[in-house]
Amino acid sequence: MAAEMVTGHHERALELLKADAQKILKLIEVQMGNLTMPQCPLYEEVLDTQMFGLSREIDFAVRLQLIDAEAGKELLGTLEKQLSALHEASMRK
Amino acid sequence: MAAEMVTGHHERALELLKADAQKILKLIEVQMGNLTMPQCPLYEEVLDTQMFGLSREIDFAVRLQLIDAEAGKELLGTLEKQLSALHEASMRK
Repeated sequence: MAAEMVTGHHERALELLKADAQKILKLIEVQMGNLTMPQCPLYEEVLDTQMFGLSREIDFAVRLQLIDAEAGKELLGTLEKQLSALHEASMRK
Repeated sequence: MAAEMVTGHHERALELLKADAQKILKLIEVQMGNLTMPQCPLYEEVLDTQMFGLSREIDFAVRLQLIDAEAGKELLGTLEKQLSALHEASMRK
């Protein structure tokens, strides 16, 4: 049973991180879809806080050797690209 | 080997969280020891950010069933008491 639990933890950790990343992506998409609306000034603060929270979870998972650093970097990198796309879109508006 | 790895992860998770909590405690103690000095205005912001980061790590560990929620609450609760003691001390200054 224990061997499954070990890989279970690894898979579960990555699953949780991907789910948390997905929540942030949703926030970004909602904002992208509402660019014509008056921007909620706190929106960037909310996204930054969520990104900081996710980066701490990823760092923790890497330190626990539940995921490798590359996987963590990739997860954050994808979100950061979306964030800067959102930022540029809101500048062009 | 796998059974040790499972308990290893549980113990390691709690160890990492305690070490991170210890870092925040150090920050609080440094500030407590320097109350007579002009307060760095960002100090509370730094502590809040660190507490938020730790709470996300704890939440992640609980969701992964690496620690139980009680242990996480206890860890945060201890720090929160220290934080309010610091806050009161700096008010009385």
